[in-house]
Amino acid sequence: MITSTSNPRVQRVRTLQRKRQARKREGLFIIEGARLANEAVSYRSPAKLVLYTDAIKQGDPRLIEELINLGAEAEEVSERVMKACSDTESPQGLLAVLPIPSTIPPDNLSLALVADRISDPGNLGTILRTAQAVGVEAVFLNPGTVDPFNPKVVRGAMGAHFHIPIIQEQTSEIEKHLHGMDVWVAEVGLGPPYYDVDWGKPCAIVIGSEAHGPGDELRSIAKGSTHIPMHDSTESLNASVAAAVILFEIARMRGEE
Amino acid sequence: MITSTSNPRVQRVRTLQRKRQARKREGLFIIEGARLANEAVSYRSPAKLVLYTDAIKQGDPRLIEELINLGAEAEEVSERVMKACSDTESPQGLLAVLPIPSTIPPDNLSLALVADRISDPGNLGTILRTAQAVGVEAVFLNPGTVDPFNPKVVRGAMGAHFHIPIIQEQTSEIEKHLHGMDVWVAEVGLGPPYYDVDWGKPCAIVIGSEAHGPGDELRSIAKGSTHIPMHDSTESLNASVAAAVILFEIARMRGEE
Repeated sequence: MITSTSNPRVQRVRTLQRKRQARKREGLFIIEGARLANEAVSYRSPAKLVLYTDAIKQGDPRLIEELINLGAEAEEVSERVMKACSDTESPQGLLAVLPIPSTIPPDNLSLALVADRISDPGNLGTILRTAQAVGVEAVFLNPGTVDPFNPKVVRGAMGAHFHIPIIQEQTSEIEKHLHGMDVWVAEVGLGPPYYDVDWGKPCAIVIGSEAHGPGDELRSIAKGSTHIPMHDSTESLNASVAAAVILFEIARMRGEE
Repeated sequence: MITSTSNPRVQRVRTLQRKRQARKREGLFIIEGARLANEAVSYRSPAKLVLYTDAIKQGDPRLIEELINLGAEAEEVSERVMKACSDTESPQGLLAVLPIPSTIPPDNLSLALVADRISDPGNLGTILRTAQAVGVEAVFLNPGTVDPFNPKVVRGAMGAHFHIPIIQEQTSEIEKHLHGMDVWVAEVGLGPPYYDVDWGKPCAIVIGSEAHGPGDELRSIAKGSTHIPMHDSTESLNASVAAAVILFEIARMRGEE
Protein backbone atom coordinates (compact mmCIF):
# COMPACT_ATOMS: atom_id res chain seq x y z
CA MET A 1 0.00 0.00 0.00
CA ILE A 2 1.30 3.47 -0.87
CA THR A 3 1.23 5.72 2.16
CA SER A 4 3.62 8.46 1.07
CA THR A 5 2.73 11.37 -1.18
CA SER A 6 6.34 11.44 -2.37
CA ASN A 7 5.92 8.04 -4.06
CA PRO A 8 6.80 8.50 -7.78
CA ARG A 9 3.44 7.16 -9.01
CA VAL A 10 1.60 9.53 -6.72
CA GLN A 11 3.73 12.39 -7.97
CA ARG A 12 2.98 11.45 -11.56
CA VAL A 13 -0.78 11.35 -10.93
CA ARG A 14 -0.64 14.74 -9.23
CA THR A 15 1.22 16.19 -12.20
CA LEU A 16 -1.31 14.75 -14.65
CA GLN A 17 -4.15 16.25 -12.62
CA ARG A 18 -2.59 19.69 -12.56
CA LYS A 19 -0.71 20.17 -15.83
CA ARG A 20 -2.19 20.30 -19.30
CA GLN A 21 1.26 19.99 -20.83
CA ALA A 22 1.96 16.78 -18.92
CA ARG A 23 -1.35 15.27 -20.09
CA LYS A 24 -0.56 16.25 -23.65
CA ARG A 25 3.03 15.01 -23.54
CA GLU A 26 2.09 11.64 -22.07
CA GLY A 27 -1.25 11.27 -23.87
CA LEU A 28 -2.92 10.44 -20.57
CA PHE A 29 -5.71 11.76 -18.41
CA ILE A 30 -7.37 10.84 -15.15
CA ILE A 31 -10.87 9.76 -14.21
CA GLU A 32 -12.18 9.56 -10.66
CA GLY A 33 -14.91 7.48 -9.10
CA ALA A 34 -16.70 4.21 -9.77
CA ARG A 35 -19.16 5.69 -12.25
CA LEU A 36 -16.50 6.81 -14.72
CA ALA A 37 -14.38 3.72 -14.05
CA ASN A 38 -17.34 1.55 -15.04
CA GLU A 39 -17.66 3.57 -18.25
CA ALA A 40 -13.96 2.96 -18.92
CA VAL A 41 -14.51 -0.76 -18.44
CA SER A 42 -17.51 -0.93 -20.79
CA TYR A 43 -15.57 1.12 -23.32
CA ARG A 44 -12.66 -1.32 -22.78
CA SER A 45 -10.30 1.60 -22.31
CA PRO A 46 -6.98 0.12 -21.13
CA ALA A 47 -6.16 1.99 -17.92
CA LYS A 48 -2.43 2.32 -17.23
CA LEU A 49 -2.68 2.72 -13.50
CA VAL A 50 -5.44 2.46 -10.91
CA LEU A 51 -5.19 3.79 -7.38
CA TYR A 52 -7.82 2.74 -4.84
CA THR A 53 -8.49 2.90 -1.13
CA ASP A 54 -9.38 0.05 1.21
CA ALA A 55 -13.01 1.25 1.26
CA ILE A 56 -13.30 0.70 -2.51
CA LYS A 57 -11.54 -2.66 -2.35
CA GLN A 58 -14.08 -3.82 0.24
CA GLY A 59 -17.06 -2.26 -1.53
CA ASP A 60 -16.40 -2.95 -5.21
CA PRO A 61 -13.57 -5.50 -5.68
CA ARG A 62 -15.01 -6.62 -9.04
CA LEU A 63 -14.47 -3.17 -10.56
CA ILE A 64 -10.78 -3.12 -9.60
CA GLU A 65 -10.40 -6.62 -11.02
CA GLU A 66 -11.99 -5.62 -14.31
CA LEU A 67 -9.64 -2.67 -14.61
CA ILE A 68 -6.66 -4.96 -13.94
CA ASN A 69 -7.97 -7.41 -16.57
CA LEU A 70 -7.83 -4.57 -19.09
CA GLY A 71 -4.13 -4.19 -18.35
CA ALA A 72 -3.98 -1.68 -15.50
CA GLU A 73 -1.47 -1.88 -12.70
CA ALA A 74 -3.40 -1.31 -9.50
CA GLU A 75 -2.13 -0.05 -6.16
CA GLU A 76 -3.89 0.43 -2.89
CA VAL A 77 -3.23 3.85 -1.34
CA SER A 78 -3.99 5.41 2.04
CA GLU A 79 -6.90 7.84 2.37
CA ARG A 80 -4.36 10.63 2.78
CA VAL A 81 -2.57 9.74 -0.46
CA MET A 82 -5.91 9.50 -2.29
CA LYS A 83 -6.80 12.96 -1.04
CA ALA A 84 -3.47 14.28 -2.36
CA CYS A 85 -4.11 12.67 -5.77
CA SER A 86 -7.74 13.70 -6.12
CA ASP A 87 -9.01 16.87 -7.75
CA THR A 88 -12.04 16.92 -5.42
CA GLU A 89 -12.44 17.74 -1.77
CA SER A 90 -14.29 14.50 -1.12
CA PRO A 91 -12.42 11.86 -3.12
CA GLN A 92 -14.39 8.80 -4.18
CA GLY A 93 -11.52 6.45 -3.36
CA LEU A 94 -10.76 5.34 -6.91
CA LEU A 95 -8.88 6.91 -9.77
CA ALA A 96 -7.55 5.61 -13.05
CA VAL A 97 -4.97 6.92 -15.50
CA LEU A 98 -6.23 6.40 -19.04
CA PRO A 99 -4.92 7.05 -22.55
CA ILE A 100 -6.51 10.09 -24.18
CA PRO A 101 -8.96 8.61 -26.73
CA SER A 102 -8.51 8.95 -30.46
CA THR A 103 -9.58 12.31 -31.81
CA ILE A 104 -10.42 11.51 -35.41
CA PRO A 105 -13.80 12.97 -36.34
CA PRO A 106 -16.09 10.58 -38.23
CA ASP A 107 -16.78 11.27 -41.92
CA ASN A 108 -20.13 12.69 -43.02
CA LEU A 109 -20.94 14.47 -39.80
CA SER A 110 -24.60 15.26 -39.37
CA LEU A 111 -24.32 17.26 -36.12
CA ALA A 112 -21.21 18.89 -34.68
CA LEU A 113 -20.50 21.44 -31.98
CA VAL A 114 -17.69 23.99 -31.82
CA ALA A 115 -16.67 25.31 -28.39
CA ASP A 116 -15.12 28.68 -29.27
CA ARG A 117 -12.83 29.88 -26.48
CA ILE A 118 -14.90 28.39 -23.66
CA SER A 119 -12.51 28.89 -20.76
CA ASP A 120 -14.62 27.72 -17.82
CA PRO A 121 -14.05 23.99 -17.13
CA GLY A 122 -17.47 23.54 -15.49
CA ASN A 123 -19.17 24.97 -18.57
CA LEU A 124 -17.19 22.81 -20.99
CA GLY A 125 -17.90 19.69 -18.93
CA THR A 126 -21.62 20.40 -18.95
CA ILE A 127 -21.52 21.14 -22.69
CA LEU A 128 -19.86 17.78 -23.40
CA ARG A 129 -22.40 15.95 -21.24
CA THR A 130 -25.25 17.66 -23.09
CA ALA A 131 -23.61 16.94 -26.46
CA GLN A 132 -23.63 13.24 -25.65
CA ALA A 133 -27.28 13.37 -24.54
CA VAL A 134 -28.25 14.92 -27.88
CA GLY A 135 -26.14 12.67 -30.08
CA VAL A 136 -23.60 15.24 -31.26
CA GLU A 137 -21.07 13.32 -33.37
CA ALA A 138 -17.97 15.46 -32.80
CA VAL A 139 -17.01 18.39 -30.59
CA PHE A 140 -14.31 20.76 -31.84
CA LEU A 141 -12.35 22.98 -29.46
CA ASN A 142 -10.20 25.86 -30.62
CA PRO A 143 -7.24 27.49 -28.85
CA GLY A 144 -8.58 29.49 -25.93
CA THR A 145 -10.92 26.67 -24.92
CA VAL A 146 -9.96 24.91 -21.70
CA ASP A 147 -8.29 21.49 -21.99
CA PRO A 148 -11.10 18.90 -22.24
CA PHE A 149 -8.97 16.50 -20.19
CA ASN A 150 -8.76 18.95 -17.29
CA PRO A 151 -10.12 17.07 -14.24
CA LYS A 152 -13.04 19.47 -13.73
CA VAL A 153 -14.12 19.08 -17.36
CA VAL A 154 -13.85 15.29 -17.10
CA ARG A 155 -15.95 15.30 -13.93
CA GLY A 156 -18.67 17.52 -15.42
CA ALA A 157 -18.83 15.58 -18.70
CA MET A 158 -19.91 12.39 -16.87
CA GLY A 159 -18.39 9.99 -19.38
CA ALA A 160 -18.94 11.93 -22.61
CA HIS A 161 -15.20 11.56 -23.26
CA PHE A 162 -15.81 7.87 -23.98
CA HIS A 163 -18.58 8.51 -26.48
CA ILE A 164 -17.77 11.60 -28.53
CA PRO A 165 -14.61 12.44 -30.48
CA ILE A 166 -13.24 15.60 -28.90
CA ILE A 167 -10.94 17.41 -31.31
CA GLN A 168 -8.58 20.21 -30.30
CA GLU A 169 -7.37 22.12 -33.37
CA GLN A 170 -6.52 25.51 -34.74
CA THR A 171 -9.66 27.31 -35.88
CA SER A 172 -8.54 27.07 -39.52
CA GLU A 173 -8.28 23.28 -39.22
CA ILE A 174 -11.69 23.07 -37.58
CA GLU A 175 -13.14 24.96 -40.52
CA LYS A 176 -11.84 22.27 -42.90
CA HIS A 177 -13.67 19.58 -40.92
CA LEU A 178 -16.90 21.58 -41.17
CA HIS A 179 -16.70 21.89 -44.95
CA GLY A 180 -20.10 21.25 -46.54
CA MET A 181 -22.03 21.70 -43.29
CA ASP A 182 -24.33 24.59 -42.36
CA VAL A 183 -22.40 26.42 -39.63
CA TRP A 184 -24.57 28.49 -37.25
CA VAL A 185 -23.13 30.84 -34.66
CA ALA A 186 -25.07 31.38 -31.42
CA GLU A 187 -25.04 35.11 -30.73
CA VAL A 188 -27.01 37.36 -28.43
CA GLY A 189 -29.75 39.12 -30.40
CA LEU A 190 -28.49 38.31 -33.92
CA GLY A 191 -30.10 36.35 -36.74
CA PRO A 192 -33.33 34.35 -36.52
CA PRO A 193 -34.46 32.68 -33.28
CA TYR A 194 -32.96 29.21 -32.90
CA TYR A 195 -36.38 27.60 -33.41
CA ASP A 196 -36.79 29.20 -36.86
CA VAL A 197 -33.54 27.79 -38.26
CA ASP A 198 -33.76 24.77 -40.60
CA TRP A 199 -31.70 22.23 -38.68
CA GLY A 200 -32.55 19.39 -41.06
CA LYS A 201 -29.26 19.56 -42.99
CA PRO A 202 -25.85 18.51 -41.67
CA CYS A 203 -24.94 21.34 -39.35
CA ALA A 204 -22.54 22.65 -36.75
CA ILE A 205 -23.37 25.06 -33.97
CA VAL A 206 -20.71 27.44 -32.62
CA ILE A 207 -20.96 28.35 -28.93
CA GLY A 208 -18.70 31.20 -27.84
CA SER A 209 -17.68 32.26 -24.38
CA GLU A 210 -19.89 34.72 -22.56
CA ALA A 211 -17.00 37.11 -22.19
CA HIS A 212 -15.81 37.23 -25.78
CA GLY A 213 -18.67 35.98 -27.94
CA PRO A 214 -17.82 34.02 -31.06
CA GLY A 215 -14.61 34.79 -32.94
CA ASP A 216 -14.50 36.47 -36.37
CA GLU A 217 -12.81 33.50 -38.02
CA LEU A 218 -15.70 31.14 -37.38
CA ARG A 219 -18.23 33.84 -38.16
CA SER A 220 -16.69 34.23 -41.60
CA ILE A 221 -17.50 30.64 -42.63
CA ALA A 222 -20.93 30.61 -40.99
CA LYS A 223 -24.23 30.41 -42.82
CA GLY A 224 -25.55 32.83 -40.24
CA SER A 225 -26.11 33.71 -36.61
CA THR A 226 -28.98 32.53 -34.47
CA HIS A 227 -30.15 33.72 -31.09
CA ILE A 228 -32.20 32.60 -28.11
CA PRO A 229 -34.98 35.13 -27.43
CA MET A 230 -34.88 36.28 -23.82
CA HIS A 231 -37.14 38.10 -21.43
CA ASP A 232 -36.52 41.84 -20.80
CA SER A 233 -33.60 42.77 -18.62
CA THR A 234 -31.59 39.63 -19.36
CA GLU A 235 -28.27 40.20 -21.08
CA SER A 236 -27.05 36.72 -21.77
CA LEU A 237 -27.17 33.07 -20.84
CA ASN A 238 -24.61 30.73 -19.40
CA ALA A 239 -22.72 29.17 -22.36
CA SER A 240 -23.69 25.63 -21.34
CA VAL A 241 -27.36 26.66 -21.16
CA ALA A 242 -27.25 28.29 -24.60
CA ALA A 243 -25.68 25.13 -26.05
CA ALA A 244 -28.32 22.91 -24.43
CA VAL A 245 -31.32 24.97 -25.56
CA ILE A 246 -30.19 24.97 -29.20
CA LEU A 247 -28.99 21.35 -29.29
CA PHE A 248 -32.22 19.97 -27.81
CA GLU A 249 -34.27 22.00 -30.30
CA ILE A 250 -32.22 20.42 -33.10
CA ALA A 251 -32.92 16.97 -31.62
CA ARG A 252 -36.64 17.79 -31.28
CA MET A 253 -36.92 19.01 -34.89
CA ARG A 254 -35.00 16.07 -36.29
CA GLY A 255 -37.13 13.67 -34.25
CA GLU A 256 -40.27 15.10 -35.86
CA GLU A 257 -39.12 14.47 -39.41
CA MET B 1 -8.53 52.83 4.38
CA ILE B 2 -8.95 49.45 6.05
CA THR B 3 -5.72 47.48 5.87
CA SER B 4 -6.33 44.88 8.57
CA THR B 5 -8.37 41.72 8.17
CA SER B 6 -9.20 41.89 11.88
CA ASN B 7 -11.23 45.06 11.34
CA PRO B 8 -14.79 44.36 12.63
CA ARG B 9 -16.44 45.28 9.31
CA VAL B 10 -14.12 42.95 7.45
CA GLN B 11 -14.89 40.19 9.94
CA ARG B 12 -18.61 40.77 9.48
CA VAL B 13 -18.34 40.56 5.68
CA ARG B 14 -16.33 37.36 5.93
CA THR B 15 -18.96 35.83 8.21
CA LEU B 16 -21.76 36.81 5.82
CA GLN B 17 -19.87 35.23 2.93
CA ARG B 18 -19.33 31.98 4.76
CA LYS B 19 -22.34 31.38 6.99
CA ARG B 20 -25.91 30.82 5.88
CA GLN B 21 -27.15 31.32 9.45
CA ALA B 22 -25.50 34.74 9.66
CA ARG B 23 -27.11 35.82 6.38
CA LYS B 24 -30.48 34.61 7.61
CA ARG B 25 -30.16 36.20 11.06
CA GLU B 26 -29.11 39.57 9.68
CA GLY B 27 -31.24 39.47 6.51
CA LEU B 28 -28.19 40.43 4.47
CA PHE B 29 -26.19 39.04 1.57
CA ILE B 30 -23.20 40.09 -0.49
CA ILE B 31 -22.71 40.91 -4.13
CA GLU B 32 -19.34 41.29 -5.80
CA GLY B 33 -18.23 43.25 -8.85
CA ALA B 34 -19.39 46.27 -10.82
CA ARG B 35 -21.94 44.38 -12.89
CA LEU B 36 -24.02 43.27 -9.91
CA ALA B 37 -23.46 46.60 -8.13
CA ASN B 38 -24.92 48.39 -11.14
CA GLU B 39 -27.94 46.08 -10.96
CA ALA B 40 -28.32 46.97 -7.27
CA VAL B 41 -28.24 50.67 -8.17
CA SER B 42 -30.87 50.33 -10.91
CA TYR B 43 -33.01 48.27 -8.56
CA ARG B 44 -32.44 51.02 -5.92
CA SER B 45 -31.45 48.36 -3.41
CA PRO B 46 -30.12 50.24 -0.35
CA ALA B 47 -26.68 48.74 0.28
CA LYS B 48 -25.62 48.81 3.93
CA LEU B 49 -21.91 48.71 3.32
CA VAL B 50 -19.63 48.94 0.31
CA LEU B 51 -15.97 47.95 0.30
CA TYR B 52 -13.80 48.97 -2.65
CA THR B 53 -10.18 49.07 -3.68
CA ASP B 54 -8.22 52.02 -5.03
CA ALA B 55 -8.39 50.51 -8.55
CA ILE B 56 -12.21 50.69 -8.49
CA LYS B 57 -12.20 54.21 -7.03
CA GLN B 58 -10.00 55.35 -9.90
CA GLY B 59 -11.87 53.39 -12.55
CA ASP B 60 -15.54 53.82 -11.57
CA PRO B 61 -15.98 56.57 -8.94
CA ARG B 62 -19.56 57.24 -10.12
CA LEU B 63 -20.67 53.73 -9.14
CA ILE B 64 -19.36 54.10 -5.58
CA GLU B 65 -21.07 57.49 -5.34
CA GLU B 66 -24.38 56.06 -6.49
CA LEU B 67 -24.17 53.31 -3.89
CA ILE B 68 -23.45 55.95 -1.20
CA ASN B 69 -26.41 58.00 -2.43
CA LEU B 70 -28.64 54.99 -1.79
CA GLY B 71 -27.51 55.02 1.83
CA ALA B 72 -24.43 52.79 1.90
CA GLU B 73 -21.44 53.45 4.07
CA ALA B 74 -18.38 53.00 1.87
CA GLU B 75 -14.84 52.15 2.90
CA GLU B 76 -11.70 51.80 0.85
CA VAL B 77 -9.80 48.60 1.64
CA SER B 78 -6.38 47.28 0.68
CA GLU B 79 -6.08 44.63 -2.04
CA ARG B 80 -5.17 42.13 0.67
CA VAL B 81 -8.30 42.90 2.69
CA MET B 82 -10.44 42.67 -0.46
CA LYS B 83 -8.98 39.25 -1.16
CA ALA B 84 -9.84 38.15 2.37
CA CYS B 85 -13.43 39.40 1.95
CA SER B 86 -14.02 38.01 -1.52
CA ASP B 87 -15.46 34.60 -2.35
CA THR B 88 -13.42 34.47 -5.58
CA GLU B 89 -9.77 33.92 -6.27
CA SER B 90 -9.59 37.03 -8.46
CA PRO B 91 -11.65 39.66 -6.62
CA GLN B 92 -13.18 42.40 -8.72
CA GLY B 93 -12.32 45.08 -6.15
CA LEU B 94 -15.88 45.95 -5.13
CA LEU B 95 -18.38 44.31 -2.86
CA ALA B 96 -21.63 45.44 -1.30
CA VAL B 97 -23.69 44.17 1.62
CA LEU B 98 -27.38 44.26 0.68
CA PRO B 99 -30.67 43.43 2.37
CA ILE B 100 -32.14 40.12 1.23
CA PRO B 101 -35.05 41.13 -1.05
CA SER B 102 -38.67 40.52 -0.20
CA THR B 103 -39.80 36.97 -0.81
CA ILE B 104 -43.52 37.36 -1.36
CA PRO B 105 -44.60 35.52 -4.51
CA PRO B 106 -46.91 37.50 -6.78
CA ASP B 107 -50.56 36.43 -7.04
CA ASN B 108 -51.84 34.63 -10.13
CA LEU B 109 -48.55 33.07 -11.12
CA SER B 110 -48.38 31.98 -14.72
CA LEU B 111 -44.96 30.31 -14.62
CA ALA B 112 -43.08 29.10 -11.54
CA LEU B 113 -40.09 26.88 -10.89
CA VAL B 114 -39.43 24.63 -7.91
CA ALA B 115 -35.82 23.72 -7.12
CA ASP B 116 -36.23 20.45 -5.23
CA ARG B 117 -33.14 19.69 -3.12
CA ILE B 118 -30.67 21.24 -5.59
CA SER B 119 -27.53 21.22 -3.47
CA ASP B 120 -24.92 22.44 -5.94
CA PRO B 121 -24.53 26.24 -5.78
CA GLY B 122 -23.28 26.51 -9.36
CA ASN B 123 -26.35 24.67 -10.63
CA LEU B 124 -28.77 26.78 -8.60
CA GLY B 125 -27.08 30.01 -9.78
CA THR B 126 -27.39 28.95 -13.41
CA ILE B 127 -31.02 27.90 -12.87
CA LEU B 128 -31.88 31.32 -11.44
CA ARG B 129 -30.14 33.09 -14.32
CA THR B 130 -32.09 30.96 -16.82
CA ALA B 131 -35.34 31.54 -14.92
CA GLN B 132 -34.88 35.28 -15.33
CA ALA B 133 -34.12 34.90 -19.05
CA VAL B 134 -37.37 32.99 -19.55
CA GLY B 135 -39.58 35.23 -17.43
CA VAL B 136 -40.26 32.82 -14.56
CA GLU B 137 -42.30 34.77 -11.99
CA ALA B 138 -41.24 32.98 -8.81
CA VAL B 139 -38.68 30.36 -7.82
CA PHE B 140 -39.45 28.15 -4.82
CA LEU B 141 -36.71 26.33 -2.92
CA ASN B 142 -37.38 23.58 -0.42
CA PRO B 143 -35.19 22.39 2.46
CA GLY B 144 -32.22 20.55 1.00
CA THR B 145 -31.72 23.20 -1.66
CA VAL B 146 -28.58 25.31 -1.19
CA ASP B 147 -29.06 28.84 0.21
CA PRO B 148 -29.82 31.12 -2.78
CA PHE B 149 -27.80 33.89 -1.08
CA ASN B 150 -24.67 31.71 -0.94
CA PRO B 151 -21.96 33.73 -2.76
CA LYS B 152 -21.51 31.11 -5.50
CA VAL B 153 -25.23 31.10 -6.24
CA VAL B 154 -25.31 34.90 -6.32
CA ARG B 155 -22.36 34.95 -8.73
CA GLY B 156 -23.88 32.38 -11.08
CA ALA B 157 -27.33 34.00 -11.07
CA MET B 158 -25.92 37.22 -12.59
CA GLY B 159 -28.51 39.55 -11.05
CA ALA B 160 -31.58 37.29 -11.09
CA HIS B 161 -31.90 37.95 -7.35
CA PHE B 162 -33.03 41.49 -8.19
CA HIS B 163 -35.70 40.38 -10.64
CA ILE B 164 -37.36 37.20 -9.37
CA PRO B 165 -38.93 36.49 -5.97
CA ILE B 166 -36.93 33.61 -4.50
CA ILE B 167 -38.95 31.84 -1.82
CA GLN B 168 -37.45 29.36 0.66
CA GLU B 169 -40.19 27.32 2.33
CA GLN B 170 -41.14 23.91 3.59
CA THR B 171 -42.39 21.73 0.74
CA SER B 172 -45.92 21.74 2.21
CA GLU B 173 -45.97 25.57 2.12
CA ILE B 174 -44.67 25.60 -1.46
CA GLU B 175 -47.54 23.33 -2.44
CA LYS B 176 -50.03 25.90 -1.14
CA HIS B 177 -48.48 28.58 -3.36
CA LEU B 178 -48.85 26.27 -6.38
CA HIS B 179 -52.55 25.65 -5.76
CA GLY B 180 -54.50 25.84 -9.02
CA MET B 181 -51.42 25.49 -11.23
CA ASP B 182 -50.44 22.50 -13.36
CA VAL B 183 -47.37 21.10 -11.58
CA TRP B 184 -45.03 19.05 -13.78
CA VAL B 185 -42.09 17.08 -12.43
CA ALA B 186 -39.02 16.64 -14.63
CA GLU B 187 -37.99 13.00 -14.36
CA VAL B 188 -35.68 10.78 -16.34
CA GLY B 189 -37.71 8.62 -18.70
CA LEU B 190 -41.17 9.23 -17.17
CA GLY B 191 -44.29 10.79 -18.66
CA PRO B 192 -44.55 12.48 -22.05
CA PRO B 193 -41.60 14.31 -23.64
CA TYR B 194 -41.44 17.94 -22.47
CA TYR B 195 -42.42 19.16 -25.96
CA ASP B 196 -45.71 17.23 -25.88
CA VAL B 197 -46.93 18.82 -22.64
CA ASP B 198 -49.55 21.60 -22.88
CA TRP B 199 -47.71 24.48 -21.25
CA GLY B 200 -50.41 27.00 -22.09
CA LYS B 201 -52.01 26.97 -18.62
CA PRO B 202 -50.47 28.45 -15.46
CA CYS B 203 -47.82 25.93 -14.54
CA ALA B 204 -44.90 25.09 -12.33
CA ILE B 205 -41.99 22.85 -13.22
CA VAL B 206 -40.17 20.86 -10.53
CA ILE B 207 -36.45 20.26 -11.07
CA GLY B 208 -34.90 17.73 -8.70
CA SER B 209 -31.28 17.07 -7.93
CA GLU B 210 -29.45 14.57 -10.09
CA ALA B 211 -28.59 12.50 -7.05
CA HIS B 212 -32.03 12.18 -5.49
CA GLY B 213 -34.54 12.98 -8.23
CA PRO B 214 -37.74 14.72 -7.23
CA GLY B 215 -39.24 14.09 -3.81
CA ASP B 216 -42.46 12.15 -3.22
CA GLU B 217 -44.23 15.12 -1.62
CA LEU B 218 -44.09 17.24 -4.77
CA ARG B 219 -44.84 14.26 -6.97
CA SER B 220 -48.07 13.71 -5.05
CA ILE B 221 -49.49 17.12 -6.06
CA ALA B 222 -48.20 16.96 -9.63
CA LYS B 223 -50.34 16.70 -12.73
CA GLY B 224 -47.65 14.40 -14.09
CA SER B 225 -44.03 13.78 -14.93
CA THR B 226 -42.29 14.88 -18.09
CA HIS B 227 -38.94 13.88 -19.50
CA ILE B 228 -36.29 15.05 -21.93
CA PRO B 229 -35.62 12.34 -24.54
CA MET B 230 -31.92 11.51 -24.70
CA HIS B 231 -29.60 9.69 -27.02
CA ASP B 232 -28.57 6.12 -26.14
CA SER B 233 -26.06 5.65 -23.38
CA THR B 234 -26.91 8.89 -21.59
CA GLU B 235 -28.26 8.48 -18.08
CA SER B 236 -29.14 12.00 -17.09
CA LEU B 237 -28.58 15.69 -17.63
CA ASN B 238 -27.14 18.38 -15.43
CA ALA B 239 -30.04 19.85 -13.42
CA SER B 240 -29.45 23.35 -14.78
CA VAL B 241 -29.51 22.00 -18.35
CA ALA B 242 -32.76 20.10 -17.73
CA ALA B 243 -34.36 23.26 -16.32
CA ALA B 244 -33.20 25.35 -19.29
CA VAL B 245 -34.40 22.92 -21.97
CA ILE B 246 -37.90 22.71 -20.48
CA LEU B 247 -38.23 26.42 -19.60
CA PHE B 248 -37.18 27.60 -23.06
CA GLU B 249 -39.66 25.19 -24.66
CA ILE B 250 -42.40 26.71 -22.50
CA ALA B 251 -41.32 30.19 -23.64
CA ARG B 252 -41.25 29.07 -27.27
CA MET B 253 -44.74 27.51 -27.09
CA ARG B 254 -46.25 30.49 -25.29
CA GLY B 255 -44.64 32.85 -27.79
CA GLU B 256 -46.39 31.02 -30.63
CA GLU B 257 -49.86 31.49 -29.18
